[in-house]
Amino acid sequence: MGGVQSLGVGMIGLGVVGGGVARILQERSTYFRQAHGLDLVLRRVAVRNPGKPRAVDLPAGVITDDAPAVIQDPGVDILIEVMGGLDPASGFCLEALRAGKDVVTANKALLAEKGQPLFHAASEAGVGLGFEASVCGGIPIMRALSRGLVANEIESLYGILNGTTNYILTRMSDDGGSFEEMLGQAQERGYAEADPTMDIDGTDAAQKLALLCRLAFCSHVSPATIPRDGIEAIGPLDIDFARELGYAIKLLAIAKTHGRRLETRVHPALVPSGCLLANIKDEFNAVEVVGSAVGPQVFYGRGAGQMPTASAVVSDLVDLARQRTSSVRQDAFVPTETAEADPVPPEEVVTSFYCRLTVRDRPGVLAQVAQIYAQEHISIAKVIQHGRSDTEDGAVPLILTLHEAPEGSMRRAVSSINKLPVVTEPAQIIRIEEL
Amino acid sequence: MGGVQSLGVGMIGLGVVGGGVARILQERSTYFRQAHGLDLVLRRVAVRNPGKPRAVDLPAGVITDDAPAVIQDPGVDILIEVMGGLDPASGFCLEALRAGKDVVTANKALLAEKGQPLFHAASEAGVGLGFEASVCGGIPIMRALSRGLVANEIESLYGILNGTTNYILTRMSDDGGSFEEMLGQAQERGYAEADPTMDIDGTDAAQKLALLCRLAFCSHVSPATIPRDGIEAIGPLDIDFARELGYAIKLLAIAKTHGRRLETRVHPALVPSGCLLANIKDEFNAVEVVGSAVGPQVFYGRGAGQMPTASAVVSDLVDLARQRTSSVRQDAFVPTETAEADPVPPEEVVTSFYCRLTVRDRPGVLAQVAQIYAQEHISIAKVIQHGRSDTEDGAVPLILTLHEAPEGSMRRAVSSINKLPVVTEPAQIIRIEEL
Repeated sequence: MGGVQSLGVGMIGLGVVGGGVARILQERSTYFRQAHGLDLVLRRVAVRNPGKPRAVDLPAGVITDDAPAVIQDPGVDILIEVMGGLDPASGFCLEALRAGKDVVTANKALLAEKGQPLFHAASEAGVGLGFEASVCGGIPIMRALSRGLVANEIESLYGILNGTTNYILTRMSDDGGSFEEMLGQAQERGYAEADPTMDIDGTDAAQKLALLCRLAFCSHVSPATIPRDGIEAIGPLDIDFARELGYAIKLLAIAKTHGRRLETRVHPALVPSGCLLANIKDEFNAVEVVGSAVGPQVFYGRGAGQMPTASAVVSDLVDLARQRTSSVRQDAFVPTETAEADPVPPEEVVTSFYCRLTVRDRPGVLAQVAQIYAQEHISIAKVIQHGRSDTEDGAVPLILTLHEAPEGSMRRAVSSINKLPVVTEPAQIIRIEEL
Repeated sequence: MGGVQSLGVGMIGLGVVGGGVARILQERSTYFRQAHGLDLVLRRVAVRNPGKPRAVDLPAGVITDDAPAVIQDPGVDILIEVMGGLDPASGFCLEALRAGKDVVTANKALLAEKGQPLFHAASEAGVGLGFEASVCGGIPIMRALSRGLVANEIESLYGILNGTTNYILTRMSDDGGSFEEMLGQAQERGYAEADPTMDIDGTDAAQKLALLCRLAFCSHVSPATIPRDGIEAIGPLDIDFARELGYAIKLLAIAKTHGRRLETRVHPALVPSGCLLANIKDEFNAVEVVGSAVGPQVFYGRGAGQMPTASAVVSDLVDLARQRTSSVRQDAFVPTETAEADPVPPEEVVTSFYCRLTVRDRPGVLAQVAQIYAQEHISIAKVIQHGRSDTEDGAVPLILTLHEAPEGSMRRAVSSINKLPVVTEPAQIIRIEEL
């Protein structure tokens, strides 16, 4: 209470996000002073090329090319890392934490792949490590999990965490194009990178899911251990049949607790078209969290972009600054104890399924397929057989939805089905999530 | 860091919400100790009838009928007020704040109608006043506004804040009943009180909107000054025509900044059927916030009920406890300065409109109506005239949507239209919000 406390901020990187952070610090300085009693002074910013013209005006002497000098500057209390990449960003963050500075980073890949030593260093030094910006851009999901829902055991979490794939799937559904066409469109509009592999194949979503698991379940999950499928095999036929069945197709990142075990996965899924996640359009993100006390909650917003990401960085900065003005350290962002997750093996994961077969149009096909599913104790829920021929050889799509079954059983069934002479292409299998 | 700090909690009231709070404190005590270093001890609970059997087991001596003794107990650091009502709850909270205790309350009406002295007392005493539970149950919207979106100027806010009216409107839309039928159903299912007036007429939503404005705009708004319309006049015809036009009807609470002026209102509105708010079903709540940096965000969940509300109370309790273990007070929940809002007069508020007229089925009606709108410089966007006769006297509905116009102009136009001899019932006017 009373009076304004001044804190020094250092930043490494002044690209898109860094420029946004600098702008917010300038534009909101009066508010931070009046409403929060904080004078946040951007004291030093390290960049590769100090001579380059910048969109934001900073006082002389603030910009330097000497990152270690920024980190060690005694006038810098909190360091913002927005340079990106694993190295040297990792070393810079570690050095700052060890020097007793709080660190804020938007670097999802760094935290997901090499975060454990950083979280450990923050805990050792009794400083904070803010990473709200690393998942879902400006959506305050990290705060919701670590603070707002503190009274809840989180039971499950379903996220649309990747804007690129959600844009592609939305456009395929609403405009009716192919995956390749819509990927091209996403690239033109800046929603997909030149090399979109990490987005398309689910790696980006898996990294974000790992970070969400840290706060939602106090679990340490390595992204490499999260089973994942990308969206590259989703075709217009699947979008159409899903719609006919009352579903939309979304790339979901899912985590669920089963006692002490944690089930994690990233894959395209059919979700009921009336549910909120089915209605998340284009490049937007959303996370549905089911808490033991609150039940289902959804958090929605822009998952990327300059100002949303900068907004999240600054929210961490303000929280850490408030904390730093306390004499007792509070360790706001890093749960004091996280345990290595005990994963549910993929073959034991139980879901219902959508199965699109391409078969020769002759009697008895369904009987053969049904018998194989019966052998694996998988029940058929619905069958669609329009008899329309989409291919030169007269093959037709045969669509089935299947009641809940372990993935292991489904894999064995599909392996047998793919060997049937009447089946002309490998089966397309997509999980169904009844949110 | 290190060690566990013990804090004493007092509670006034052990009804539905209080029972939920006591349960969470018991079930989550290990987590609070391990992850937050907090031992939250429910030391004393004041109730009207200490002899009554309770669902939750508390140690002997905790329950008392002496509320002032709970407040003044030196072992009580934080007071939870869940007794409800304006008096004596108001006096109890004031007394606790003045005694240097943090206060957590779920008492929306108290804060909205008589909150100013409480916020003032908290500020004077340098203690916290947590009220996350007072708006939207378990949805951490207060935290999102005061912390997560701290980097943003909030430009506008659209809330479905009342579960009763949202349940009624959803069921009217999905099941096709009348307002009265669905109100009856809501009462049977426990979503509406025996006297539902405050829900139906928008008073409850206005109180919640006033509290949201405190955090979103640092503005002090008295609920009585918020213009409001209820949903009692919405009929099945309106639901049907709205759907035909591509909209759903929702009771919205809206706040928008215009420079230093604040526009607030609560009324039913047509919202595009594809937007998220149109898809908020039954008793659920949602708030869409548009921030200067993040753009639109939506927060969704259960707005009422025992455990969601208790979840919000406990989240405030944990935050205040963390704060209390700091030697520097941080005033987390109450913006240090709020200004009396400078309201936009209702007649200046600009929206587009849906207008349902009941007219005699004869030539020239539309020309007469169109001329009146033209005189007020209101442009017609769409007209629907099915010619179906719904009434004994052969009157038919004539539906118009109107481009943006100030409410004052619309009122004058409608007053003239209602006087036309061909118009057999007063016009039904509902605002359109293109979210």
